[in-house]
Amino acid sequence: MSRLMDRSYLVKFSSRLEEGRALAEDVWSIYNVANLPADCINLGQGYMNFPPPVWLKKAAEEALGVVAANHYSHPKGRMRLREAIKNVYGPQLNRVLDVEKEILVTSGANEGQYSVFTAFLEDGDEVIMFEPFFDQYLPSVTFNGGKPVYVPLHPPSNASGKFSSDEWKIDSRELRDAITSRTKMIIVNTPHNPVGKVFTKAELEMIAALAEEHNLLVMADEVYDCLVYDEKEHFRIANLPGMWDRTVTVGSAGKSFAATGWRVGWLIGPESIIKPSLAATTRIVFASNSPLQEATAAGLEQVQGRKFFQQQLAEYAERRQVLTDCFDTLGLPYTNPEGSYFILLDISRVKFPDDYPFPESVLGRGRDFRACWFIALEIGVSSIPVSEFYCIEHANIGEVYARFAFCKDVDTLRNAAERFKKLVKYIV
Amino acid sequence: MSRLMDRSYLVKFSSRLEEGRALAEDVWSIYNVANLPADCINLGQGYMNFPPPVWLKKAAEEALGVVAANHYSHPKGRMRLREAIKNVYGPQLNRVLDVEKEILVTSGANEGQYSVFTAFLEDGDEVIMFEPFFDQYLPSVTFNGGKPVYVPLHPPSNASGKFSSDEWKIDSRELRDAITSRTKMIIVNTPHNPVGKVFTKAELEMIAALAEEHNLLVMADEVYDCLVYDEKEHFRIANLPGMWDRTVTVGSAGKSFAATGWRVGWLIGPESIIKPSLAATTRIVFASNSPLQEATAAGLEQVQGRKFFQQQLAEYAERRQVLTDCFDTLGLPYTNPEGSYFILLDISRVKFPDDYPFPESVLGRGRDFRACWFIALEIGVSSIPVSEFYCIEHANIGEVYARFAFCKDVDTLRNAAERFKKLVKYIV
Repeated sequence: MSRLMDRSYLVKFSSRLEEGRALAEDVWSIYNVANLPADCINLGQGYMNFPPPVWLKKAAEEALGVVAANHYSHPKGRMRLREAIKNVYGPQLNRVLDVEKEILVTSGANEGQYSVFTAFLEDGDEVIMFEPFFDQYLPSVTFNGGKPVYVPLHPPSNASGKFSSDEWKIDSRELRDAITSRTKMIIVNTPHNPVGKVFTKAELEMIAALAEEHNLLVMADEVYDCLVYDEKEHFRIANLPGMWDRTVTVGSAGKSFAATGWRVGWLIGPESIIKPSLAATTRIVFASNSPLQEATAAGLEQVQGRKFFQQQLAEYAERRQVLTDCFDTLGLPYTNPEGSYFILLDISRVKFPDDYPFPESVLGRGRDFRACWFIALEIGVSSIPVSEFYCIEHANIGEVYARFAFCKDVDTLRNAAERFKKLVKYIV
Repeated sequence: MSRLMDRSYLVKFSSRLEEGRALAEDVWSIYNVANLPADCINLGQGYMNFPPPVWLKKAAEEALGVVAANHYSHPKGRMRLREAIKNVYGPQLNRVLDVEKEILVTSGANEGQYSVFTAFLEDGDEVIMFEPFFDQYLPSVTFNGGKPVYVPLHPPSNASGKFSSDEWKIDSRELRDAITSRTKMIIVNTPHNPVGKVFTKAELEMIAALAEEHNLLVMADEVYDCLVYDEKEHFRIANLPGMWDRTVTVGSAGKSFAATGWRVGWLIGPESIIKPSLAATTRIVFASNSPLQEATAAGLEQVQGRKFFQQQLAEYAERRQVLTDCFDTLGLPYTNPEGSYFILLDISRVKFPDDYPFPESVLGRGRDFRACWFIALEIGVSSIPVSEFYCIEHANIGEVYARFAFCKDVDTLRNAAERFKKLVKYIV
């Protein structure tokens, strides 16, 4: 009975938590506002400091007044929302989507992706992800018995100032070499977090050809699909010949409508992918929250009439401009993102004292962890170290960068730019 | 390349979907309003046909007007809600709850339970559940590599009319015999869905002693904790000596506030259980929806001042009375539930023609599947067949019963009672 002696941990947690960094202090907790000075401007985590449009709020209030919209939705999602998704996404996917079989509403895009992993992975199945990767992919794959396999995006080798996110490249040979008999899926995140890259048609064709050759699923994480700048074409891999049958496209109300706390997302794909994913999500969450599904439906119903995405995009382009102007002045290399709302700033020329009073949590990590901490405390602007989005073997690629989110109002970004002037004296 | 020939199922779903009935048509879909006559009174699925209290709706509207309450919450849950849970549940658990370590907000109780299974189960770990069991337990366990082990609740053998849900008994020898070296957890659902049983202190002590002896976790699914009738004491197993350390208590805003579509639930327990469950839920859903967490917090803050649970309980007691009066008149045996909002009606004396035009989906299942279908179509009141809540070996215990939910307004229940008069001619 000795195992009963220490009552603080009677029953050990599952070994799956030991993989995938699940119990480690994650980067979001370390650079959380709670750990930073109160007046630090938060360009770390990717949520907005402005609300969803007021007409969506009104739709949510209306839903709260309807009895049925306060109770369980169908696990597939509310019909009104599935119809709205069909009407917005169908034309973009060149299909008449079947609201019963090809659309699934999920509790945020995150839970939708988790459901796909639950639905398809066998123990030991491999999932390829491009680095830097959205950090949730890793534990979501390992919790479902999968094994992440990393293929790096390579930044340009000699950038001296602004360069396009398009200059981050996949090495097709590295991708091919990463595929084994156990590969089940490739995750393609476009527009990409945190690089901002919008994959070109040629790049997607290369990935698609390998997916066809090796019979792989493709998870097209396109949650930033309404944030693509400078008339760049956002190409959907599901639209390539033959790819509909093996692609699940992921969308997000949180990103589309500045409502990250609403937890409404969706999956679009063939019945062969949606039906198993529905079986998974039904057991994981049963259904997603009803009132905010109704509000999201109202949002999608009105985007065209209101030209909402066009207007929102123009606002984000202005926000991006504030930060890129600031970084131009600093003279540090950075990616100009074609999509999403992140800028990677090369912080390798930012010098900080080795004996700066860093907290335990950032020591023993990449140099970028210390640089981000230093910048947050000395300049007063928080960011996220990019090595967190790489596997340990490739962390050296990431530790050159800090990620700044510009999903903040222009005044906040201008204040940040003002503070950045203080950074000059630390640049060598 | 022959596996590429049939493009309708290019990549097979995970074998985990083949266990746990995950891809079969579930009972909720078969008896869905969409499959039944439009004027059928729905006493099948357990959601209310009345709204949450208007002061909760107001709190939700207020939250929608606050920027931060539209964006990501902390994965642990919003502090206001954790504080409210602490204040309501702390006294009931005789503890000062630690809002950082002992409370976790989840996307409905369902996702909370799923997270505990993800956090604790190793492949092959066994989870004991009492039959009839809430049907989501089964796939939630198997999806996480666990193996469900069933211990039946036994109804009284010779009931002729109304009998208390307390007369459903566990055989302690059957429970002991079900425990093996691989047993990891026991699920104790009290008040119980669908039996309505509120486990007595003596029963819980028996379960607790076995949990201590074999070092098991206990999942106390107490989502109906505010629906316990007739001054019956709702005892919490976490309050038994030594049991706090191995018990996670599950609660639900949907059940507590007639808001099943809000998807807000919570886990309360020691850090040793909450911390791994937090690691799981963070990866599964990242965080729960923010505006309805705020509204739930407002609800819990005000229940005492408004005597809300007392008033709600009186309303449910009246609803229960309408149905039990009706069943008394019919003269069929049924359980009088001490808790929750379900009544199990013994339908073994309800006769229906063998050649009734039953749909494919109810043939080849228990007799109760056909009885429920017949009653829905001929009487106009839908219910759920109880054999669905048993494993195949024990389905014969369940197929005697149909489950009727009385979480409906009194007028609806009176209409149902009126329709039940037509059942008399089918009773032998």
